[in-house]
Amino acid sequence: MILVFRQGCTREEVAYAEEKLKAIGMVPHTLCGVERTVIAAIGDERKTSAEELSIIPGVENVLPILAPYKLASREMQPTPSVFHIGGSDSPCGGTSNRVEFGGKTIPFIAGPCAVEGRSQVLEVAQAVKEAGATALRAGAFKPRTSPYQFQGLAEEGLEYLAEARDATGLPIVTEVLTPADVPLVAKYTDVLQVGTRNMQNFLLLRACGAIRTPVLLKRGMSATLEEYLLAAEYILAGGNPRVMLCERGIRTFETYVRNTFALAMVPALKEKSHLPVLADPSHGTGVRKFVPPMTKASIACGADGILIEVHPDPEKALTDGAQTISVKDFAKLIKESRAVAEAVGRTV
Amino acid sequence: MILVFRQGCTREEVAYAEEKLKAIGMVPHTLCGVERTVIAAIGDERKTSAEELSIIPGVENVLPILAPYKLASREMQPTPSVFHIGGSDSPCGGTSNRVEFGGKTIPFIAGPCAVEGRSQVLEVAQAVKEAGATALRAGAFKPRTSPYQFQGLAEEGLEYLAEARDATGLPIVTEVLTPADVPLVAKYTDVLQVGTRNMQNFLLLRACGAIRTPVLLKRGMSATLEEYLLAAEYILAGGNPRVMLCERGIRTFETYVRNTFALAMVPALKEKSHLPVLADPSHGTGVRKFVPPMTKASIACGADGILIEVHPDPEKALTDGAQTISVKDFAKLIKESRAVAEAVGRTV
Amino acid sequence: MILVFRQGCTREEVAYAEEKLKAIGMVPHTLCGVERTVIAAIGDERKTSAEELSIIPGVENVLPILAPYKLASREMQPTPSVFHIGGSDSPCGGTSNRVEFGGKTIPFIAGPCAVEGRSQVLEVAQAVKEAGATALRAGAFKPRTSPYQFQGLAEEGLEYLAEARDATGLPIVTEVLTPADVPLVAKYTDVLQVGTRNMQNFLLLRACGAIRTPVLLKRGMSATLEEYLLAAEYILAGGNPRVMLCERGIRTFETYVRNTFALAMVPALKEKSHLPVLADPSHGTGVRKFVPPMTKASIACGADGILIEVHPDPEKALTDGAQTISVKDFAKLIKESRAVAEAVGRTV
Amino acid sequence: MILVFRQGCTREEVAYAEEKLKAIGMVPHTLCGVERTVIAAIGDERKTSAEELSIIPGVENVLPILAPYKLASREMQPTPSVFHIGGSDSPCGGTSNRVEFGGKTIPFIAGPCAVEGRSQVLEVAQAVKEAGATALRAGAFKPRTSPYQFQGLAEEGLEYLAEARDATGLPIVTEVLTPADVPLVAKYTDVLQVGTRNMQNFLLLRACGAIRTPVLLKRGMSATLEEYLLAAEYILAGGNPRVMLCERGIRTFETYVRNTFALAMVPALKEKSHLPVLADPSHGTGVRKFVPPMTKASIACGADGILIEVHPDPEKALTDGAQTISVKDFAKLIKESRAVAEAVGRTV
Repeated sequence: MILVFRQGCTREEVAYAEEKLKAIGMVPHTLCGVERTVIAAIGDERKTSAEELSIIPGVENVLPILAPYKLASREMQPTPSVFHIGGSDSPCGGTSNRVEFGGKTIPFIAGPCAVEGRSQVLEVAQAVKEAGATALRAGAFKPRTSPYQFQGLAEEGLEYLAEARDATGLPIVTEVLTPADVPLVAKYTDVLQVGTRNMQNFLLLRACGAIRTPVLLKRGMSATLEEYLLAAEYILAGGNPRVMLCERGIRTFETYVRNTFALAMVPALKEKSHLPVLADPSHGTGVRKFVPPMTKASIACGADGILIEVHPDPEKALTDGAQTISVKDFAKLIKESRAVAEAVGRTV
Repeated sequence: MILVFRQGCTREEVAYAEEKLKAIGMVPHTLCGVERTVIAAIGDERKTSAEELSIIPGVENVLPILAPYKLASREMQPTPSVFHIGGSDSPCGGTSNRVEFGGKTIPFIAGPCAVEGRSQVLEVAQAVKEAGATALRAGAFKPRTSPYQFQGLAEEGLEYLAEARDATGLPIVTEVLTPADVPLVAKYTDVLQVGTRNMQNFLLLRACGAIRTPVLLKRGMSATLEEYLLAAEYILAGGNPRVMLCERGIRTFETYVRNTFALAMVPALKEKSHLPVLADPSHGTGVRKFVPPMTKASIACGADGILIEVHPDPEKALTDGAQTISVKDFAKLIKESRAVAEAVGRTV
Repeated sequence: MILVFRQGCTREEVAYAEEKLKAIGMVPHTLCGVERTVIAAIGDERKTSAEELSIIPGVENVLPILAPYKLASREMQPTPSVFHIGGSDSPCGGTSNRVEFGGKTIPFIAGPCAVEGRSQVLEVAQAVKEAGATALRAGAFKPRTSPYQFQGLAEEGLEYLAEARDATGLPIVTEVLTPADVPLVAKYTDVLQVGTRNMQNFLLLRACGAIRTPVLLKRGMSATLEEYLLAAEYILAGGNPRVMLCERGIRTFETYVRNTFALAMVPALKEKSHLPVLADPSHGTGVRKFVPPMTKASIACGADGILIEVHPDPEKALTDGAQTISVKDFAKLIKESRAVAEAVGRTV
Repeated sequence: MILVFRQGCTREEVAYAEEKLKAIGMVPHTLCGVERTVIAAIGDERKTSAEELSIIPGVENVLPILAPYKLASREMQPTPSVFHIGGSDSPCGGTSNRVEFGGKTIPFIAGPCAVEGRSQVLEVAQAVKEAGATALRAGAFKPRTSPYQFQGLAEEGLEYLAEARDATGLPIVTEVLTPADVPLVAKYTDVLQVGTRNMQNFLLLRACGAIRTPVLLKRGMSATLEEYLLAAEYILAGGNPRVMLCERGIRTFETYVRNTFALAMVPALKEKSHLPVLADPSHGTGVRKFVPPMTKASIACGADGILIEVHPDPEKALTDGAQTISVKDFAKLIKESRAVAEAVGRTV
């Protein structure tokens, strides 16, 4: 931690701060400049916070040196995490294919926004598999902005998803909304998705840390990189190492898209963390026409996987139709994505 | 709903859209301009969404006419809601004073960020009461950005809060983090607080709608006015009418504050909704020095209550010390606020 | 400057950085922690920049200690600047009243968005004077988002403004758009306004620094506090000390207002700078109904002046009608503002 | 335009609005719903504005149907604009190569942020040419946030740029800051760049519309798509058809980058406008490491050109070193970009 004192601070204030820093196990080095006195404090910053130290009398500003997350960092693990989902050892006991994340191949997790019924899920699962998808996504529990909108089929939806897995071999990715539902959802799914609005639902993160099912943690709509990796840290600190990150668009002043797809987050996360980083161009833009170009852009800048909304008949989708592409367009996109992946030394 | 078609749309596309609108009970009026064809559809928009209609072939843009919330709106109830918290009929069965919200008097809900221990809570409750506070706030369950930070005393903290209420008569406002904890927290508190990070935790909102304890719903860090009132709608639709709103700062590019205190939200919410609107200058700025001027600004622009962090010794606070004011400064602020309140025809 | 090295940096990298810092006149103090090596460099940071030093090999992060502005800072001048505009020594040679800024009294600069004609300006000048305004604002050169909108009356408009000053004694505040027009506009006006879109038009700032006319510099729509004070620094560094700042709303994700009125900027600027800080609730919100409450909020949090759009018939205004209040509403607002000003120890 | 009236509006208010609309040449169609009365007004919306109509008594909301720009729109010209810069007919009379924009090939405009001296420019021009660049960029006039930073070599810099063009054949792209300098800069350069901070410097846009030199108009830091195309409209309306757009990052709450690179703007602009759309990954991120992946992402999502900062020795660059890549890295990036371009059916 670097403590910068206001101009004209007193000796007593500096001495008091030195004592305070020693008391929490840090070693203060005090430097007196012409305009400012500065204390550089060496030690484990994670025991304190910039905010906590900023209220020491005479201190004008506190600058942290270390990132506040540890298990999620590249320093903890310098090489990228590579792990699989699904397979014969999937915690849900399903019979899905084993799909690797973090390696050379870029998996596509495709499917409708919501599970709307048995036949819809079985149909779309078969269709996206044929088109080249490696996992199936669909929500049985839906977080909806308005209480008057469709809220999902709940456990019935989970059953259909499990049936679709049995039929196609595609591992399942589905969202869980609350800690109490974690055991239920984990019984059916290969990957638990923690959605954007729950990125800082810390009790849910803890519950996900306490199980062995891999977790897909989506970035919050206004989360900084640091807050995002701290959210992942909650899960990792609980003992669950299989965490996937996913850029899905942030909230800014832009209105021609539903969200601003902040794609530089992909290389940035990969620099700071060893965890696989996916991209979700469907929510990332919210506009169907922009999904294909932004999928290719995601691959070009290094995404380790793609999460994408596909529906047999997007116009009839109960939720998120405006950003959902058709199965036909998805099949075309997979082909085009393959070419881009090869251009950057990867495969789809 | 207004459906704007792209230039060069076909007759068939327009006819198809007309049928689709009729099918959901709306009456389409089609207008052919030189540059664009437009359908103005009259009826209950809340059965559909702009997004859903935007995927009709040929449609370029959909503009909603009505707000998507209803129970929270001024149209539902043209006069401001006035209700009390605490009192002999408080659902928690406590013995607190009755405090009115939405009326001429502006209550101050004051207290530390977190319950840190029994004596701290009892001491601060007594101190803020003497300074002029009308309710006590403190968190027993704390949502913290990092897993390595203090997470609250949980039920032990709730017990201390109840004891502080008995000692001072101040009604209690405390946060609940997850639906499963609602009955527990409601047993102790006069008001359930739903925090910023949970504004769109829809299961929590439903759980709060199912009980009779008043709810203080804080605005999400990147929530629009419409999303915010839809979140309130979840609670109201559950049958719980006592919902208080609270502007607490949003996330923008500004860095000299922790959050940008968007105070025009106060008159804006009061124009659209009948619910009382509070302001939280502590989180709204995140900087102790700005709390007094922004408290006075909140009152000047019409806030119906103030939520404020006060600690006997802010430097020793376990959480949020940087934005917490001392009891002495709080007593001074209450006096200054009283003068501003009178200048705008209200009382503190 | 604090230079934080990446984990595993080499001795050579640290030595190289030390040399580099010495070469620009700074004194490096190197501290080797367990996780990181840090150099605290003492000296005049303004000769370099964090960005420039961040590219030294091995450096992961650079943290500045000092603010990059100097003349605008409280350190340069610990007490608030108090100065007047207009009066017998006004550089334009007019005959306006002398109006003080930065003192106990809070001046209201009122008038229409644009000069639309001679009689409009004379009428509104007389009306706002009677209502209590202390200066007149109106644009003769209008920056307009679309090339198809009214662009202002140019010099003809300036002449009407000068005539309105002669008739009422109100000093004139009007915008200048480009360096080449500075001498022309300065010939007519008591205060040059540099608008939001020009806050970083550095040649215009230099031109304003080279004359003696006071300058009202509005905050840019996405300017940080630091960028804003650096813009003021351009004018001050040119030798023109009479610079007024003005918060006028920033661009965020909010849509119920045209801009987000970031009022905590008022106490923040007053803490960092000695310059007077005004507030513009008309642009700050963009919504007429919110102008009165936000004017009172501006005064309550310490604004040193109010800039406000008033039109005899807002519905007929050629520009900005949606945020303009009527003369009648303005007269009422002045009265209400007076009460709030007195409540915070000031006068209107 | 769609005018939505507040609940409980009067017949007189609706009739007045109808008259008002007719008076400006629009045809009103009034629809009375249960909850709201709506007028759909057909005609040329560009003669008025939503804001202007929103102040009609009784009107709650106004929704425009048409985009406010025309010449820049796809409706004006359904196929993409393809045009060249440089060549024997370059308005500056230079002897540069002819480079096409808007076609299958994606030009790279590369060079240092600022012209620092004669040998630097000649050296870098030669180097980027050999690496594969098709045009040279460098600033002779630099807009700098602080008055204490290097401000550019002005005309001396322009002369070095012209010399570099003669030596290499690369067309020149350089920034102009103020209308008065347009003739001077146009004398030397093949393309005038209007920078981010000047996107709404309307007098500069007009001056650029009045000449024949192609213009590279960078997106403003907080500009919406509509404001951006209206800025282009200023130049087009002046009679200059060769306008290139460029996404260069926007200001949001993100801090791990200097700007948030909003790449979905590329397909969005190409959908709404026929003008070529470039991308600037250097300013778009502000971080050197992210420039190569984001360059490839720009190409993958359809950018028609790349603007990139390259310096022989980035560590010694006087400006923007943190986001500048070396010539060696640039040569490597060109190769990698070529592969991505081919994967999306284009060439570099």
